[in-house]
Amino acid sequence: MDQAKVHSVDEQDYNIRTAKSSDHPRIISVMPNWWDGRDLRPLLPRLFLKHFCDTSFIIEKENELIGFLIGFLSQSIQDEAYIHFVGIHPDFRRKGLGKTLYRRFFNQCPNNGRTLVRACTSPINKDSIEFHQRMGFQIEPGDGQIDSIPVTLDYNCPGDHKVLFMKWL
Amino acid sequence: MDQAKVHSVDEQDYNIRTAKSSDHPRIISVMPNWWDGRDLRPLLPRLFLKHFCDTSFIIEKENELIGFLIGFLSQSIQDEAYIHFVGIHPDFRRKGLGKTLYRRFFNQCPNNGRTLVRACTSPINKDSIEFHQRMGFQIEPGDGQIDSIPVTLDYNCPGDHKVLFMKWL
Repeated sequence: MDQAKVHSVDEQDYNIRTAKSSDHPRIISVMPNWWDGRDLRPLLPRLFLKHFCDTSFIIEKENELIGFLIGFLSQSIQDEAYIHFVGIHPDFRRKGLGKTLYRRFFNQCPNNGRTLVRACTSPINKDSIEFHQRMGFQIEPGDGQIDSIPVTLDYNCPGDHKVLFMKWL
Repeated sequence: MDQAKVHSVDEQDYNIRTAKSSDHPRIISVMPNWWDGRDLRPLLPRLFLKHFCDTSFIIEKENELIGFLIGFLSQSIQDEAYIHFVGIHPDFRRKGLGKTLYRRFFNQCPNNGRTLVRACTSPINKDSIEFHQRMGFQIEPGDGQIDSIPVTLDYNCPGDHKVLFMKWL
């Protein structure tokens, strides 16, 4: 994987590295707090950290977990990569760390033959929608609209509508 | 992928094929009924059918969904493959269809350089534990025991203990 330096305002203050399977319990332990008590832990079973750790990234500061990105290279679609889950410690938001994680993920795509990155989010998550747009993602047209945002209805199951993002590298 | 014929008692009566992304809504729609009302749908977001469909398999009979296996080749561990989720229609159990799906998954492993297959289940699921043992899986030693079965405690999150299986091909 490409470990080239990514330039970001605060990057020198943090330890940014690829993930390890053993990071999983620590990620799980912070999730309820980082998501205001919402329990999203079922979305991140250990398999993601065991089998896709080499395209997933961790940010630490003085050994404390500050952020993580869980992504993988599509197995079925040879030119695509997918960002599944991203979290930043509430006290360290708005510092460019999400951008740093995404860039780290983008950087290892060309060496792996990936030209398209996909991600998705819930229509309620306006911060995430704006973040992806700032990062250059397009929203896929979908088959519905919520708050004027195009959504793909019933994406993961009935009632679970999603905003789908794609970005050509 | 290796599509070699797998010999199974009932196989000629069924259509067995690799999965497609468009199978996802149909799989999601049967899950509550196939699992006695338990809602396991969050464990199978659409990403598995989009990005790992070429190592996932579907059984149909007269166009009705009878069974499915969702599996993938580990990205981080080059010689491993993982079976994530398997379901068989309640009226078609105990006919060897689970075995057929597992063999189909095993058959495409050598061509992809995979010599070890892993899977896991909940300790409460005695049928699944017996099935994996009949299929030649070993249970990993773990760090606890439930009903005399070795389990790995807190595997996906605190309280979510799992029986971990491995099988060398």
